[in-house]
Parts: sequence; C-alpha cells; structure tokens
Amino acid sequence: MIGKLYGVGLGPGDPELMTLKAYRLIQNADVVAYPTLEGGDSFARSIAADVIPNGVGEIAIHVPMSVEREPAQAAYDTGAADIAGALDAGKNVVVLCEGDPFFYGSFMYLFSRLADRYETEVVAGVTSVTACAAAVQKPLTARNEVLTIIPGPIGEDDLHARISGAEAVAIMKVGRHLPKIKKVLTELNLIQHAVYVERATLPVQKVMPLADVPEPAPYFSMILVTKGNDPWL
Amino acid sequence: MIGKLYGVGLGPGDPELMTLKAYRLIQNADVVAYPTLEGGDSFARSIAADVIPNGVGEIAIHVPMSVEREPAQAAYDTGAADIAGALDAGKNVVVLCEGDPFFYGSFMYLFSRLADRYETEVVAGVTSVTACAAAVQKPLTARNEVLTIIPGPIGEDDLHARISGAEAVAIMKVGRHLPKIKKVLTELNLIQHAVYVERATLPVQKVMPLADVPEPAPYFSMILVTKGNDPWL
Repeated sequence: MIGKLYGVGLGPGDPELMTLKAYRLIQNADVVAYPTLEGGDSFARSIAADVIPNGVGEIAIHVPMSVEREPAQAAYDTGAADIAGALDAGKNVVVLCEGDPFFYGSFMYLFSRLADRYETEVVAGVTSVTACAAAVQKPLTARNEVLTIIPGPIGEDDLHARISGAEAVAIMKVGRHLPKIKKVLTELNLIQHAVYVERATLPVQKVMPLADVPEPAPYFSMILVTKGNDPWL
Repeated sequence: MIGKLYGVGLGPGDPELMTLKAYRLIQNADVVAYPTLEGGDSFARSIAADVIPNGVGEIAIHVPMSVEREPAQAAYDTGAADIAGALDAGKNVVVLCEGDPFFYGSFMYLFSRLADRYETEVVAGVTSVTACAAAVQKPLTARNEVLTIIPGPIGEDDLHARISGAEAVAIMKVGRHLPKIKKVLTELNLIQHAVYVERATLPVQKVMPLADVPEPAPYFSMILVTKGNDPWL
C-alpha cells in the first residue's frame, strides 16, 4: 500500500483558524512535513504544534534564503525525495502549509515533484488576505468590485501601473518593500485609504494607517487599499 | 449586558472546511442569523446545519432577488433591527456567512448597520477562490505573480481590459455570464488556460475545461485562468 500526500492549509496564524479537515488530517497523519527557513523555526509547524500527535514522523525541509532560485529548488528535491520514501513505505504524509497551499505557497514545489506519481489532495485554508480584512474591520470587496492581489517585491513601475488601474488592492509580503509601496501609494493619492496589518490573527498582530508604519516591516505584513465604492456601505 | 455580534465565515461549502473557531462560536451561539434568497433555503445555514445547537434562536433575513438595490437594503434594515433586538437582550449573535464575511459577502450590509453600536468580531473563512484551485489541482499564484479576482457580472469591455492586463485570474459568480466570459477569453486566446469549477468542495462539485462547459452555469461557479509562468513548476 502506497501512502497518500496531503497539502493542508493552516490559515494565517491563529491555530483556531485551521479548518476542521486540517485538524483531522494532522491528528491522523503518519508523517508531517514542513519548510523551515535555513534550519530555523517553521511558521507552519508552529501553527499546528498543538495538533501534531506525539511520535509522528517529521520531515523538515530546510529552504535556504537566497535570491538565486537553484538552492531552494535543490532543497525541495531533497524534501520531495524524503516524502516519496515515506509514501512508498505506506505512510500518509501531511505537508503543513501556512495560509493556503496554492496561494503563494511553497507546497506547489513539492506538488510539482510528487503529484504525478502519488495520490495527492490539497486542502484549502484561510488566506492572510481575508484575515487582514477581518482585522481591519473593513469589507474587502463588495458586489462587483475587482480585487487585485499584488506581491510587494514586484518592480516600482509595475506596482504603480497595477494599483492605478485597480479597485480594491491587497499588497502582500511588504517587508523591506515598504518605502517603495508607500511612495507609489502617495503618488497615486491613495495613502489615506491604505491600512497596514502585521502578523494578522497572532497575539502580536498590529493594525495601523499606512502613513504611521515605522520601517522596517516584517515579511508577514500586508497593506489593504479599499476605496469603498459601494454607496450602501 | 449587551451581546456580541460575530460575522463568521463558513468556507466554500464542505462543512469540514469551516474553521475550528467558526465551529466553537456556532456551538456556543445564543442566536444564529443568515440570509435566504426570497425565503428559500440558506446556503450558509446548510453548511452549518450539523453544528447549530437545538433550540438556538434563528433570524432569517429574506433577501429579495432584484436588480434594484433598495428592496435588498430594506431586508438588511429589518434583519439588522432583529439582530439588534437580540444583542440588546444580552444574546450573542453569530451571523453565518458562506465563504468569508468580507469577501463579496452580504454580511457587510449588516456590519455597516451594527458595528458602530455593538462589539463586533469578524472571523475569516476559506474562500471559494482557493477552494477551486485545490479542486483543479493547479497552483493559483506562485512567488511574485499578481492575482486578479473579477466578478462575472462586470461589463464585457471592462472584463476584456482587466483580463488582458492580468497574470493569474479568478472569475467569480459566472452563472448567466458564461457566454460573455467565454467570448472574452477566446478573443484573448486564453480559453485553453481556463478551467471551470462548479460548487467547489460539495459532493456535486464539477471541474472541467472551460471549452466543455454546457450553458447555463449556476451562480456558484468560477473560472480560473493560470498561465503558469513559474519555470520551476
């Protein structure tokens, strides 16, 4: 018997925002796997920590921090081989994914290496985008509004073009890109509509107007820009 | 003692995709409230049905189907007044929301009427967008890709412009707008990258290439267009 592979979204950080299905799958896992940044802590594992059964197998995938992509891809090669070994031994493997596995997640690099050979199920999770809207207490999108989700690392000109044509906007992975994003939103006269959220749903969560945010921002931060065009709100 | 208002996301349809927090709040609710379409069934209530305790109070908000917006807004006025009555009587009220409360949800119309007067907490849920990506078994967005989420009802020219400039695209609420969307994606030579998902995560879920979809499509359907630009996938 070959094991089954699960990519399981754990939500934005508060362990109570994992789904009932994620909870059940982790509790019944033979092996859990998760990425760590250069051998440090794993955010995904920390979300699931109280659910992981004692004595379960663990596969940590040490992803190096590097602008070059080859070193990280080599780490996924190693991680995929370890996971394949467990699946071949008949064990079910649950890959722990912060947020949602297919929404800017590293799970896709394991999926692309394994899903053609092993039965694979992806379980969606709550994304940080809607978690941030809940934290801000402002609707993200009403009725027929278009929502544009933009990673902060894209270039300044591209960022400017994409925001200027957009309605509601969420800018992810702000981190060291904060000054560039502030500049663009100021140029577009949108800074007064921009709210900053850091580590949404965790006890250390911060919410504040973008204009007030000190630098540097952490990686797990987001900016929401909602123009609030619905006259009924 | 005044009660507390909760807007609780239930996820895309599979009851197991509700969060642990949604489950706890519904189990401990004094009153649950939910929209129905013209007095028919409530999709949100159906997702939570097995969690709602016996004997809990229920407030059904009968939202009329109408292009005019005033009748629906009058229904939210009535619903908000009913909820306010329960809160004033010291009861906690959980509003059941399909998907996420602030992501194209009707909860925002209750929030705008009540949150300035009552303590209100919004609990994020899994959206149909990532649930559809999981169903299709295709990553939605990698690394620095921009994701554009577009409601199907927007006009043809606007739809064309927004898709042509986009990277990954999710088109929500397809329904009777299917022919228009197919036409635009054909013009943009994207139809071969488009996958259709109907009632994601429910037992009746359907996934198929957009070109094969028969008309008419139901309201709870979505089209994902992913160009898959990441060379490492």
